[in-house]
Amino acid sequence: MADGRGWGWGEEAHAVELPPHALAFLRETIGAGDVRRSPVALDDVRLPPVALGDRARGRIAAVVGAEHVRDDREARVRHAAGRGYPDLVRLRSGALETAPDAIVWPGSHEEVVELLSTCAQERVAVVPFGGGTSVVGGVEALRGDCAAVIALDLGRMDALLALDERSLTASFEGGLRGPAADALLAARGLTLGHLPQSYEYVSLGGAVATRSAGQASTGFGRIDELLVGVRLAAPAGELELPPRPPSAAGPQLRELVAGSEGVLGVITRVDLRVRPVAPWRYEGWACRSFEEGVEALRALEQHGCAPAVARLSDEEETRLSLALAGSGGLAARAGRLYLRVRGRAQGCLVIVGWSGEPAEVAQARAAANRILRAHGAVALGSPPGEAWARGRFRAPYLRDALLDHGVMAETLETAGQWSGLTALHDAVRDALRDALGARGAAPLVMCHVSHLYPTGASLYFTFLARQQQGSELEQWRAAKHAASDAIAAAGGTITHHHAIGVDHAPWMAGEVGETGLELLRAAKARLDPQGIMNPGKLLERGASAPAA
Amino acid sequence: MADGRGWGWGEEAHAVELPPHALAFLRETIGAGDVRRSPVALDDVRLPPVALGDRARGRIAAVVGAEHVRDDREARVRHAAGRGYPDLVRLRSGALETAPDAIVWPGSHEEVVELLSTCAQERVAVVPFGGGTSVVGGVEALRGDCAAVIALDLGRMDALLALDERSLTASFEGGLRGPAADALLAARGLTLGHLPQSYEYVSLGGAVATRSAGQASTGFGRIDELLVGVRLAAPAGELELPPRPPSAAGPQLRELVAGSEGVLGVITRVDLRVRPVAPWRYEGWACRSFEEGVEALRALEQHGCAPAVARLSDEEETRLSLALAGSGGLAARAGRLYLRVRGRAQGCLVIVGWSGEPAEVAQARAAANRILRAHGAVALGSPPGEAWARGRFRAPYLRDALLDHGVMAETLETAGQWSGLTALHDAVRDALRDALGARGAAPLVMCHVSHLYPTGASLYFTFLARQQQGSELEQWRAAKHAASDAIAAAGGTITHHHAIGVDHAPWMAGEVGETGLELLRAAKARLDPQGIMNPGKLLERGASAPAA
Repeated sequence: MADGRGWGWGEEAHAVELPPHALAFLRETIGAGDVRRSPVALDDVRLPPVALGDRARGRIAAVVGAEHVRDDREARVRHAAGRGYPDLVRLRSGALETAPDAIVWPGSHEEVVELLSTCAQERVAVVPFGGGTSVVGGVEALRGDCAAVIALDLGRMDALLALDERSLTASFEGGLRGPAADALLAARGLTLGHLPQSYEYVSLGGAVATRSAGQASTGFGRIDELLVGVRLAAPAGELELPPRPPSAAGPQLRELVAGSEGVLGVITRVDLRVRPVAPWRYEGWACRSFEEGVEALRALEQHGCAPAVARLSDEEETRLSLALAGSGGLAARAGRLYLRVRGRAQGCLVIVGWSGEPAEVAQARAAANRILRAHGAVALGSPPGEAWARGRFRAPYLRDALLDHGVMAETLETAGQWSGLTALHDAVRDALRDALGARGAAPLVMCHVSHLYPTGASLYFTFLARQQQGSELEQWRAAKHAASDAIAAAGGTITHHHAIGVDHAPWMAGEVGETGLELLRAAKARLDPQGIMNPGKLLERGASAPAA
Repeated sequence: MADGRGWGWGEEAHAVELPPHALAFLRETIGAGDVRRSPVALDDVRLPPVALGDRARGRIAAVVGAEHVRDDREARVRHAAGRGYPDLVRLRSGALETAPDAIVWPGSHEEVVELLSTCAQERVAVVPFGGGTSVVGGVEALRGDCAAVIALDLGRMDALLALDERSLTASFEGGLRGPAADALLAARGLTLGHLPQSYEYVSLGGAVATRSAGQASTGFGRIDELLVGVRLAAPAGELELPPRPPSAAGPQLRELVAGSEGVLGVITRVDLRVRPVAPWRYEGWACRSFEEGVEALRALEQHGCAPAVARLSDEEETRLSLALAGSGGLAARAGRLYLRVRGRAQGCLVIVGWSGEPAEVAQARAAANRILRAHGAVALGSPPGEAWARGRFRAPYLRDALLDHGVMAETLETAGQWSGLTALHDAVRDALRDALGARGAAPLVMCHVSHLYPTGASLYFTFLARQQQGSELEQWRAAKHAASDAIAAAGGTITHHHAIGVDHAPWMAGEVGETGLELLRAAKARLDPQGIMNPGKLLERGASAPAA
């Protein structure tokens, strides 16, 4: 991330500490929490030497202005990695094997075009860098077979270019961040409605490049459903697709740009649907079991009355949420919740979020509540919902706090058809338990459903385990491979919204077939014949192939 | 079309005749209707000689069985053309410059794979043939630079392969027709909900290949929104994308297959969303003007309460509908409608169709009706709606009847953002009037909006003019070029649901840019390196470039 804490998430002002009861819980459940590990200071981070030659640097500076090129330690560290677990392990240890040789801030589409052409001539790899929040290695400074690598930071390209209030579409430069976009739209009573957990840092171009879902995808649609036009600058051409409603003019090329993760080019403009600002209302429900909860959500979605936000925690996630809430801060609310959920035995927490004009919401909510009750769910009122909404962007800070105490905290996600969803859930949970247990660090594995579709839903797993000091990355790799193999075997997608990056690349052929991969490579060969765009991501099998 | 009347639409049993008052109206408005022209008999159609060599024919027969290869006159005529206006002119005149050298009916995905490989080796072009209903030249038997050309008729591949009732998805072979698919689903209380005007003949693979919208797209989604998986057989590979909910695993390759119009390969399986069968309710409304009607539909869609079917005729289409209804058959209903619309001065007819459980429909309908009334619309009750629903698949028969009387009847369509929709409407209407008027055949030009999206809507134009005997195709080309140029200049898509085929190919570069076209060509080069798949369609600029 270009901002804030160089070794973790966001800003120091929002850092959290684990309270004593949480540490006690971790000690009891996974035998962890007793150590204290601090990240190394920025000045102590070891970086590879700068490999960018003077001529190339001079040509790049001539395109964007010398003041928009940096290669100092701070800029390099801040652009060296995303915020996946392996990134955090490396950043905290201070041992960065890769870092960009320079960071470049172009100011316009035209500058990006010229910059990419220059880099292609100079054999300099380009890593497009938006919010820098990738959790799958998407912004790792890999150079492929190039001589050097730069991070192309889109931070200066943050304008609202056009707003069509009748068509409810807006055109933004690719580097604009979520909150800034919403602030610009708010002046006209509009909002984007795209709320990934990385909302505070995500760039709109990055969201499109990674097919971000957003916590309100059930109601508002994923970013690829909001996308109505796009502009891509590539080393060997430009793709200009103006905002348009659906069409039958051949294959939909927008869909080739969405999810392209920087390997085809740089997204300089996104045209997105916008919507009127409307009040939110969050509520909690308790279901008797995960299976019953899944059936309730399926019914909501297939009857067309799902709320904008719909989340169902499994038994383990529900139990952990209540345990971590403990007797501190959130005690009053969490306590009430806890008691009511206990009445549901091994209950599961559901959070729903409604957005819209009160009269419209009242109608939809009444229909949804009937369905929830028919599936055995019990209303918990607004406190659990409001508590979730307040804390919705805080989980990455909690992960940093867990790392401070030697706890591996990692997330991964998939999606599958409704008919196989609970089997997919069980297969991934069991794979994680087995893989980490076999290494002597039995984990807590929890999961929630958080994005509903008529045909299926997402599963988002969080797992906690005692870090194996000195072999943190091997431990992570064992868990990641086991979970990914289990996902593939159970017919889930290898990623619902985190994207492919480096981490999921070994499973990409299983997802789209060798022919599918070759079609994407054919597109890349056309747009990026020198292969300078984001090497090592999405299309390359990576260092370690999956288990057969 | 493989079935029915060789020179026109559908089956003789459904043929219509123009009543005297309709002929009088045509005489009065466009100076046409006095002649009587019959299509030539099948035996008198002139066909090019069969160019398929014995070796190639023998190898093809070895793949599919000799009984599934034909090259008789009837089969060749029936597979020589779609049902666009130029197709009808040529078929009726009996002068076919192109026709497939053989028609081949494979029975399975594996046979298609082997057939394509054989044809690539033998340099035989392949035109995938589903319902044969293309109105843009999509099934024209062009051979490109191949030695011969076959039509690959998918008629034998008509199975329901799998049904997932919990996920509401079904897998079908590509050649299954719409009504047959619905009959198979009806046994489980389900339906596809995909209802293009060609419904009675359309194949599901063809619908996907051309991004068919369907008359209920506003409520149920276009075919590309229903598509959750697909299998494509290509000369140099297969693309297998199993049914899955949305994912972030790179670009969405399904979207490269949807709209590929046979130039990349043959769609052998489609995985589509299905829905419970539910009752329909159709109603008519009258708006004061097209502009007010457009605003009413925009409000319905942007407030999330649009009906499954929503259509708005402009003043000219409304006037013509009433005039053609005349004093005959539909008199009672049409008369009532007419009187009520007259109260709206230059009124415009709106048809809405609701589908769903009565209680759910009642709620949505109440909200929609409030919006319609707030925009000055007046309810006309169910007769106009039911009349539209009864006649919804009959328009192509009417076109044949008009041709019998020397009247050119052609349709074309586009879509645009709401903010420019009425300007787009006026530009296309004026271009058609000018182009045909300049040739001394002033047309009637009418239009309706029939597919709503949050950001815009479709426009569907029908125009009638006196045929210029002996230069029917030149006349058509002048109108088509003028309308297409006007669409491009006004920012509309060159086709909302008819696809590109041959007729729109000159405007494809304007739609997606040269880079976009080259990306599609790169995909084709990977899947079809010999260029045997549906030559001359989608990606080739065609004989005549658009006006600069």
